[in-house]
Order: sequence, then structure tokens, then C-alpha cells
Amino acid sequence: MKIIKSIKELKKELLEYKKANLSIGFVPTMGYLHEGHLSLMRAAKKENERLIVSIFVNPMQFGANEDLDKYPRDLERDSKLCEDEGVDILFCPSVEELYPKGFSSYVDMNSLTNTLCGASRAGHFRGVCTVLMKLFNITGANRAYFGQKDAQQCAVVKQMVRDLNLDIEIKICPIVREADNLAKSSRNVYLNEDERKSALCLSRALALAKKMLDEGEKEAFKIKEAMQKEIEKENLARIDYISLVNPKTMQELEQIKDEVLVALAVFVGKTRLIDNYLRGEI
Amino acid sequence: MKIIKSIKELKKELLEYKKANLSIGFVPTMGYLHEGHLSLMRAAKKENERLIVSIFVNPMQFGANEDLDKYPRDLERDSKLCEDEGVDILFCPSVEELYPKGFSSYVDMNSLTNTLCGASRAGHFRGVCTVLMKLFNITGANRAYFGQKDAQQCAVVKQMVRDLNLDIEIKICPIVREADNLAKSSRNVYLNEDERKSALCLSRALALAKKMLDEGEKEAFKIKEAMQKEIEKENLARIDYISLVNPKTMQELEQIKDEVLVALAVFVGKTRLIDNYLRGEI
Repeated sequence: MKIIKSIKELKKELLEYKKANLSIGFVPTMGYLHEGHLSLMRAAKKENERLIVSIFVNPMQFGANEDLDKYPRDLERDSKLCEDEGVDILFCPSVEELYPKGFSSYVDMNSLTNTLCGASRAGHFRGVCTVLMKLFNITGANRAYFGQKDAQQCAVVKQMVRDLNLDIEIKICPIVREADNLAKSSRNVYLNEDERKSALCLSRALALAKKMLDEGEKEAFKIKEAMQKEIEKENLARIDYISLVNPKTMQELEQIKDEVLVALAVFVGKTRLIDNYLRGEI
Repeated sequence: MKIIKSIKELKKELLEYKKANLSIGFVPTMGYLHEGHLSLMRAAKKENERLIVSIFVNPMQFGANEDLDKYPRDLERDSKLCEDEGVDILFCPSVEELYPKGFSSYVDMNSLTNTLCGASRAGHFRGVCTVLMKLFNITGANRAYFGQKDAQQCAVVKQMVRDLNLDIEIKICPIVREADNLAKSSRNVYLNEDERKSALCLSRALALAKKMLDEGEKEAFKIKEAMQKEIEKENLARIDYISLVNPKTMQELEQIKDEVLVALAVFVGKTRLIDNYLRGEI
């Protein structure tokens, strides 16, 4: 596995791939890798001749009062995990490499970003779109892999690719969970023992939503109400949002028809966790 | 020459180019072609194995009170001109083809666009960046050609390509002028006989600026004042802006050092014309 920090050096390596006409799978990450990331790498490895993983904690997608500075980092451990998964290139550029002095362009969108995390985290998806546009262009990947846990991100990236005619296929992989159903997240490391227990209220609330949907409930507000009650049982939990949206447009639903994304963000202590249940396709 | 209206059909054609590893030059235009456009095609023809020209009057770069509806169009005449220049593919998509229902992404930038035409035409460069991002991705061109007449556009496109790591080279070609020095523009067709005469005040004002710069004038305000007086001699002319800016950052200069872009926009009657004089490089 090659660990590469500069765009120039990466381009040199990619030229060899291009000459040999090798297909490239790409897994963009912010590092502190867990089983969710590894599942993306395995999917990418199966479908492509070469696998590139990026690790970049992207300042542009963090808000002023968010956890950019304390976001967990462990490049040594991450490198080893990547090596074990058969990654060909681990790309881990510095902030200056991706955003040099004078940098001023951005990619954003008018819809899909006004609900869920987009509503709570102003500018978040501008940061996501911009860095992914850059990474897609730099790697020239044929396919990029994302976890369904960041469901709105998946929808936004798919929309960007479609709207701006990017020549890359976006693949969405299932949420990977701990044995007790907590969705895997780099941020889970922030949780103390009590918070870790409380954090199960997210998956419990989603299980409740699934049950109600399976039983034919069509009224979004009833499902939201039940989820809210479930979460309010936990003293350490504070709801950021609970939403039932159209999985393609990310717009709020009042009446559920076929497809629905049930998504929520909950602060457990100071840690903001997200999770979702998807019926249909993003 | 093939005239192609759909992205799908264009992609099919481009696959053949790709297989044969042919370099592609690209000239994006809004049609109603003049010698300026043809000079870009000739430059592109020299440096590439295949030449694609697009004609698309891009609604996204026009303001609400601008001339989108009356912008001159003549596809038949344009096709013949392209054919004569040895264009391989003329791509002329519909608005629906480039901006289908649900379209919502955009590309924009925080700097370079707050002066000159960016200040006068809110949202103009968002439209320019977005459509060019799309066209660059659709054509997969190796090089794209722009006229220096749209100097700020040239700087913005170069910045976008650099910032977002697009794999395309931006080439800037000199301004082409009429015998009496009026810069060629599709909008010149709007001018009546009196306005056509008055329109010469732009190139006269720029010649005056060049003379003052050549003689060592360093104070931007003195040059602007002289240009303003020159233009105010014409009753039919109304200044939109006169600016001396750094040609790379497009930021206003007070003191001229080496590089400078002297740019102006003037309404002649109802027609807005732009022109510039460049010392240095964009």
C-alpha cells in the first residue's frame, strides 16, 4: 500500500493506472476507521481493480461550534486497517494541500440540504460537496462508496453527480451496527459508559418507527411522536431532529406512501449521533 | 461535422475519441458567432486532434432584467461557420437537457466575483461556473478556449479549475476587434447607427489608459477619471463600471505596479458592452 500526501504524487501514480486501463474504486473518509468504513472498502475491492481510500478531516464541512479540533485521529491505526483490507493507495492530504492560499470555489445545492442535517448544520453540505468534487476529480475514480448512515449525504452526492455530469458511479452500502444495534460511528468514541447505554435510544426509536410503518401507519406525525417519547425516556438524550422524508428529495412527508427515510439526530451528552431507517432507495 | 443535441449521443461519440486516445479542444459559446469565436476555434484546432463547439444560451448566467429572451440566435448561420472552421462536433443542447427537472446544484466562488461584472450582475458567475463545470465534464475536453474580452470570466474559470482540480487546460486568446477597434461581440448587433459610433468610446478610453500607463502613471484614480471624461463625451453612453484590478485576483488597485487589468462596462443606449486592456497575465 502506498501512503500519499500530495496531489502531484497521486496523479503520477494514477497515470500508471490509466495507462493500464484499471478501474478505480474510491472510499472517502475522515479517518478513525471502523467496521462501517471497512465494509465500504470490501465492496469497492470486489467491484474495482484498484482501491483508493482518502483520509481527510475536512474543515469546510464543520460549523464554527462543532468538533473539528477534537475529531478523533489515528493515522497509524487507520493505515494498518487499510493495509489489511488490501487498499492500494491511502491518500491523506493536509488542509493546505486541498485548500491552498486563495482557494475560493465551492459546490452547493438549492434543494435536498434544507432539512435534516442540512438544517442543523449550516454550510455542512457545501463543505461535503466541495471536498468530494475535488476528491472525485483528483482520483478520477470510476465508483465511490458511501454508507447509508449518512443518508442525506448520499442523496446530496448522487444529486451533485447527476446535476454536474460527473463521470462516477455512487454506491451506497448498508449501515453497520454494533452487537447492540448502535450504528458504528467515529464519534462513538466520545461517549462515556452511561452515554453509551443512552445512545441505544436512536436504534430503539427507529425500530419502533419500522414497526409502525410495517403495521401500516401513514401519518408521519404519529411516528415522530412515538419516536420522540422513546428518546425522551433517556435523560442524557436531547433530540436535534426526527424527520420522515422522501429518500430522493429529502423533503418532509406528512403522509407516508411507499418510500420513506426515517432519520434522526440526537445529542447524547455533548455528542451528536445520527441514524436512520430506509424503506426504498436513495 | 456532427450536430448533437443530447448528452447521451455526445457521450457515445466521445467514447470513440477516447478509444482512439484523441485530444479534444473545446470552445463553449452562446452562439451568434463572430470573428472572436472563430479565432478560438482556430487556436483549438491547432492544438488538438478534435474540436467540439457548444452553443448554449445559458439562462442561469442572465439576471432577471437582462437580455436572455432577446439574445440573438441563428443556429443555421452558426452551423455553417463551424463547418467551415473544421469543427468535429457542434453540441447545442436544450435548456431541459442541461437543467432537467429537479436540477439544484451549483458552483460558485467567494472571491474574484465581487468586482467588475460580478458586482453589476448578481449570480452571473454562478451561472457561468455551473454551466462550464457541466460542459467540461460532459465533453471531457483536454483544453478549453476563452476570449480575453471576458477577462473576469477567464480569471474565474481558471480559479475554478485550480480550486476544484479539474483536469482541463484553460487557454485565453486575444480580443478580436472591428477595423475601427470596437471589440467583437454578439451584442453589437443591438446597436443602431448612432450607438455604433458612440460605442467607440470604450476602445478610446482604453487607449487613453494604455497611454497613461505607458507614460508611467501609477494612480488608478487618475486613469479612471480620464477614462470617465472620455466616455462622458458621448451622450448615448452611460458607465456601468471602470476598474483597474489585479488580473489574477480581480481586486481593485489603487497603485499600479506591474500587472493590471483595465476593464470597463458601458451601456450604449440599452446595450451593455464590455472591453478591457490587459498588462500582464490573467
